[in-house]
Amino acid sequence: MRIVELSEENKKEVQENILHRSPQQFGPQEAIVREIIENVKANGDAAVFEYTAKFDKAQLSAENFEVTEAEIAQAYEEVDPALVDVIRKALVNIRDFHEKQKQNSWITTTEKGTILGQKVTPMQRVGVYVPGGKAAYPSSVLMNVVPAKTAGVEEVIMTTPCNSEGKVNPAVLVAAKEAGADRIFKVGGAQAIAALAYGTESVPKVDKIVGPGNIFVALAKKAVYGNVSIDSIAGPSEILVLADETANPRYVAADLLSQAEHDELASAVLITTSEELAKKVSDEVEAFTEVLSRKEIIRKSIDNFGCILVARSEQEAIDAANEFASEHLEIMMKDSFEVMTKIRNAGAIFVGEYSSEPLGDYFAGPNHILPTSGTARFFSPLCVDDFVKKSSIIHYSREALEEIHKDIEQFAKCEQLTAHANSIAVRFENEEE
Amino acid sequence: MRIVELSEENKKEVQENILHRSPQQFGPQEAIVREIIENVKANGDAAVFEYTAKFDKAQLSAENFEVTEAEIAQAYEEVDPALVDVIRKALVNIRDFHEKQKQNSWITTTEKGTILGQKVTPMQRVGVYVPGGKAAYPSSVLMNVVPAKTAGVEEVIMTTPCNSEGKVNPAVLVAAKEAGADRIFKVGGAQAIAALAYGTESVPKVDKIVGPGNIFVALAKKAVYGNVSIDSIAGPSEILVLADETANPRYVAADLLSQAEHDELASAVLITTSEELAKKVSDEVEAFTEVLSRKEIIRKSIDNFGCILVARSEQEAIDAANEFASEHLEIMMKDSFEVMTKIRNAGAIFVGEYSSEPLGDYFAGPNHILPTSGTARFFSPLCVDDFVKKSSIIHYSREALEEIHKDIEQFAKCEQLTAHANSIAVRFENEEE
Repeated sequence: MRIVELSEENKKEVQENILHRSPQQFGPQEAIVREIIENVKANGDAAVFEYTAKFDKAQLSAENFEVTEAEIAQAYEEVDPALVDVIRKALVNIRDFHEKQKQNSWITTTEKGTILGQKVTPMQRVGVYVPGGKAAYPSSVLMNVVPAKTAGVEEVIMTTPCNSEGKVNPAVLVAAKEAGADRIFKVGGAQAIAALAYGTESVPKVDKIVGPGNIFVALAKKAVYGNVSIDSIAGPSEILVLADETANPRYVAADLLSQAEHDELASAVLITTSEELAKKVSDEVEAFTEVLSRKEIIRKSIDNFGCILVARSEQEAIDAANEFASEHLEIMMKDSFEVMTKIRNAGAIFVGEYSSEPLGDYFAGPNHILPTSGTARFFSPLCVDDFVKKSSIIHYSREALEEIHKDIEQFAKCEQLTAHANSIAVRFENEEE
Repeated sequence: MRIVELSEENKKEVQENILHRSPQQFGPQEAIVREIIENVKANGDAAVFEYTAKFDKAQLSAENFEVTEAEIAQAYEEVDPALVDVIRKALVNIRDFHEKQKQNSWITTTEKGTILGQKVTPMQRVGVYVPGGKAAYPSSVLMNVVPAKTAGVEEVIMTTPCNSEGKVNPAVLVAAKEAGADRIFKVGGAQAIAALAYGTESVPKVDKIVGPGNIFVALAKKAVYGNVSIDSIAGPSEILVLADETANPRYVAADLLSQAEHDELASAVLITTSEELAKKVSDEVEAFTEVLSRKEIIRKSIDNFGCILVARSEQEAIDAANEFASEHLEIMMKDSFEVMTKIRNAGAIFVGEYSSEPLGDYFAGPNHILPTSGTARFFSPLCVDDFVKKSSIIHYSREALEEIHKDIEQFAKCEQLTAHANSIAVRFENEEE
């Protein structure tokens, strides 16, 4: 068996080549994204700068790649102080909620000398992708960075595209600073994901990449998955309102539209037991749409993915909601809390008529990054747990192992794994001769 | 806006077509696997039976597709009663450990009338894939089924290939019965994954699929990911032993070989601060290999992926172990528990000289399905949490929302989301006129 002496000189060689493992298999990926990833992997910063010149029309170098403290100070000058104030208020709530999600390491012992446990360790370095352009949402910066920092992640590396002058959206910078992002690099697209996944001269390699992005970002995240972890790939936003005759149709309509305005592909669905409410909500939707600034998007979203379903019973309505498994679910019914107990599948459940969905987007504290496209059947909101990993701890004393060693050997032999059995037996070989 | 009345007749139509959402994008997948998946999705049982005839040479029909109670009773006749006994002993430990992982739903309230919380809901139905042939391990059945049942999953659907007589490995059936699998279908390969992911006339559609398999199974799991959840795709097994001059070289060598015997691609690595131990372990590895039944596999694995690294200090050894991020890590050093505190990245940590790795494979209780290929940097052992999902709960009273409603409107307007702002403002429109 090979013996290699570790030294300062061979450290990298050891980890990269000597301790090589059988490579993981990946399916073929979208060609352009693969090419970008390979190029960034091979050429580091140079490739990143090349793509940024091509796609974002910005000239970057090692000197202006990372956002400086001066740029952040400048961003504070440009942002409405009222927004800074709201961000700070929201952060108190967001931190407070995520703090409650933290899990402790634990152990369990027996007097025979066994110790079993679960050690919780934060990931060391995490990447947060923040889209640029029209979809630059400071609230999403808070929702991605806070759970990572609350989990104890040492370094949160943010990437976000800059404009052709090399400038980043100031509200995004302020939100990043307030939330505690450690470093910010001016890069977007698949090249940002590749830089985070493999590291470059400037960008450190991370353990996990989170945050929404366009199709290139989504494909790149899928391609690097396995080398790093990723969050789930989010689809268009959705709202499902469960309402009965006690609901206020103006509130229902306004809430449906709050999601419809996100995207022409967004879903806004009402399931109600009241035909009267159905009609009133439909009228209110028309009326509101006329006066809202994003009415073009809203109209397309409502026409294509909007729907009011009239159910014949409360149970039928609840069943349909569980089957749809919506990202956001609002309940405005006579017994909203009782109905909540019957909801199996939903990202976030807003209970009662003053719990409008945007309350959750911005302020209440729970994360607004939620499972879409029916994945609430098996996925959860982004949370502190997404930024830690666990290790099992196993310790047996000689006495404890001796008591059961023959059981283990028996099990191993049944599976024809004789070296497994041998590794236990060798500890008791002398006394059994 | 469309209004649709729910009825018994249109229920399916509503969920499948009327409530349609923008489809998710998936990258291209291995052609054959995609074809199998599409065929099973379109033709259900008929396609499954066709592939089973082709790949497993077994003739299945709706009558003999599902394993019956009689077949399970027959399996108990065929299995060594001593194995049944060991399985039951191991199950006590495995259930006990996983029971401790269960998380409660929680809420937090303020007297202003706010309620925030996290509701934990088990997944409704989960699929467990169990490979057939030489890699049929009853211990893996226990490790996949127990966390699902402990989480509260209503139905655990197992699939496993049968032989040409339509018979399933009896030890696998006994383990499944003991662990509490609810239904078992005789199908393997990509067709099993497709049946679980989309459902057929016989096999119910599940929310998540777990369990190891060959390359077709792995690709199929990757392809259906998003439609259902999956566990991480495991690479070859690995062991890393951290040892100093106090370690017993026979124990170290035996433990290295216990993983090497799994697979020619398995990794067995020792990192030690003692050159003397390095030499002794190398000799013991040679001696043991000669007498072990799987010596052909062991030799290839040790030659290709085995290594003994001699580090110049304990800290250097620990750093190298953290960088390797092994699936299994054994610590046999003077201060093994202190060294454990310095381990950031490992699937399971075995502390002390009587905590041999197979103890964890079979008996101690923690899960043996662990992150491989360095993914312990960001992945965790399979656990109860993998079979639940969370929903955020948000409730604000009128009073509570009134106090902060202008903050939310401000934030929404900064993001140019005026319908978001409107949904809050509409609740206070009368008093502000």
